[in-house]
Amino acid sequence: MSEAEALEKIERARRARRGRFYLNEERITLNHGAGGKASSVLVEGLFAEAFSMGVLEDAARLSDGLVLTTDSYVVDPIFFPGGDIGSLAVHGTLNDLATSGAEPIALSLGVILEEGFPLQDLRRIVQSAANACRRENVAIVTGDTKVVPRGKCDRIYLNTTGIGRITHSHRLSLAHARPGDAVLISGPLGDHGITILVARGDLHLDLELESDSAPVTRLARALVEGLDQVHCLKDPTRGGVATSLNEIAAASGVAIALDEGALPIRPPVAGACELLGIDPLHVACEGRLLALVPGAQAERALEIMRSFEPLAAIIGNVLDEPEGTVFLRTRLGATRVLDMLTGAPLPRIC
Amino acid sequence: MSEAEALEKIERARRARRGRFYLNEERITLNHGAGGKASSVLVEGLFAEAFSMGVLEDAARLSDGLVLTTDSYVVDPIFFPGGDIGSLAVHGTLNDLATSGAEPIALSLGVILEEGFPLQDLRRIVQSAANACRRENVAIVTGDTKVVPRGKCDRIYLNTTGIGRITHSHRLSLAHARPGDAVLISGPLGDHGITILVARGDLHLDLELESDSAPVTRLARALVEGLDQVHCLKDPTRGGVATSLNEIAAASGVAIALDEGALPIRPPVAGACELLGIDPLHVACEGRLLALVPGAQAERALEIMRSFEPLAAIIGNVLDEPEGTVFLRTRLGATRVLDMLTGAPLPRIC
Repeated sequence: MSEAEALEKIERARRARRGRFYLNEERITLNHGAGGKASSVLVEGLFAEAFSMGVLEDAARLSDGLVLTTDSYVVDPIFFPGGDIGSLAVHGTLNDLATSGAEPIALSLGVILEEGFPLQDLRRIVQSAANACRRENVAIVTGDTKVVPRGKCDRIYLNTTGIGRITHSHRLSLAHARPGDAVLISGPLGDHGITILVARGDLHLDLELESDSAPVTRLARALVEGLDQVHCLKDPTRGGVATSLNEIAAASGVAIALDEGALPIRPPVAGACELLGIDPLHVACEGRLLALVPGAQAERALEIMRSFEPLAAIIGNVLDEPEGTVFLRTRLGATRVLDMLTGAPLPRIC
Repeated sequence: MSEAEALEKIERARRARRGRFYLNEERITLNHGAGGKASSVLVEGLFAEAFSMGVLEDAARLSDGLVLTTDSYVVDPIFFPGGDIGSLAVHGTLNDLATSGAEPIALSLGVILEEGFPLQDLRRIVQSAANACRRENVAIVTGDTKVVPRGKCDRIYLNTTGIGRITHSHRLSLAHARPGDAVLISGPLGDHGITILVARGDLHLDLELESDSAPVTRLARALVEGLDQVHCLKDPTRGGVATSLNEIAAASGVAIALDEGALPIRPPVAGACELLGIDPLHVACEGRLLALVPGAQAERALEIMRSFEPLAAIIGNVLDEPEGTVFLRTRLGATRVLDMLTGAPLPRIC
């Protein structure tokens, strides 16, 4: 397929997809923020339309290799095993720069505080964000603080925005997956989402589990430097691996097949998911990287990933069709379609 | 005074100031978000410390002339005469780029929505933001949407972050005011703040007044292109002109004197301020520019400003001492010190 044909195919897939994004609700629901199908409908049907955005990557490419990305953080609880809202806000935005293949230049921090919020909690969060920056050799260079009356915010919400620069020649994009690509994940699935759910205490579970919240900057750098070709990098946050891969399949006009037996899932995550009736493929990670690379590069990519985390794995491959779909080859040899997350089983995960 | 002496003097003023920023409260209060003294204490005593920030400009200067600025918007009401939270969020961030002398490159938009928020209000806000961008030939290139449960946010909060580039040789800074500078304001004071207050309906006033929310990008460009020297530009938002000038006086280690008779204030704003017992110099503008330029450039600067808005005025001048103070020469010939805003008489103005 020529580049022009490929682009046309992608555009066709996008139009077909956009047609499905008709907002028929009258009010915002929690589903619209869950990162799954309703979020896509809202983003593609309203924001992308109004702002004339093209393929919605996690970060926008500007001229001179500059990249801009933004995320707000409303995670509940604000402190959890393995992190807090401060470090999460730094990692999350660094990761959106990393998946676009950019080196971070600087971050901004916007803080919305609820009247009555304890100053010592704020200190702890700010220090945690500062430490997360220091470890990655990047700085929060500007900020803003607003305070709203008691009951108008849940303790603290953050926004981090990052600018970065692409310094290599890989053309990473959600639209660049190609048949024959291998799909890799840099570590176990769902540790973050399940940790948050358990930390809320509603489940009365006591798991030996920590959030995976971490920067993937070094890993992304190692992949783009160590491989001849990388087609797509993506951090599977809200909506999990299944939603991320659906976005890639739709943007690229390809099919993606996953092998159930290859998925790295820690026993406590698998157990909690079974108990709750959720698919671990729909649970958010905050420190993992999905990589789509040409099949011939898969082993080298895995080697690089495993030098960071031994549980990294090749979990599937890209096929020509059916365009825009993701499916799972189960351990029993059956095949089932993996849709984007629907509903909001895991609100305020980030 | 040599450059080295000037820098030493500024550093001395800054240290003295930072010493005053001791956070002795245990909890966040509305004052911390009002943009006045308590906000400074919080920002300088906690954020600037943790993130090792220097002089706190409205936008951070990076390498290659790049500039980054961020603001969250929690204005109440979200629709008001002359604007809404969408256009305000675009103007506010464009203005922080403009006051640093930068041309905008792109904006990001982070949205936090309350469950149940009407979709038609969201459409209206997003369209308003898109229109504000279009008029200034800049784009929102990336975004993020979070939804929180009912009662965990007041309808909608926005964050806009802007990157820009400085393309001229003026060294604009809050620390660059010099004795002999003239102080100019680009239009009447306090229209935005009083409009918001009235729009809340608590005052049972019916004023012929609109918010001044507008971009100052073109005006800032005309000033840096039309004048040999511009020392400082600042948009007097939260805390108003008095707070902005106190920040400049402190950062530059100078005194600033204002002439009461020269202040452009519309009658409804003056009336509402008198009724409420607030000083119009503490009321936020969202489309005005303070400019500090060498005295010899004052008339030319005024001419440029008046080509945009006839009520622009030269309102004061910069003196050598007492360092870090702002005072008002009243119509009756008396002098009174103008402090930063204290307390939070005008919460959620932006």
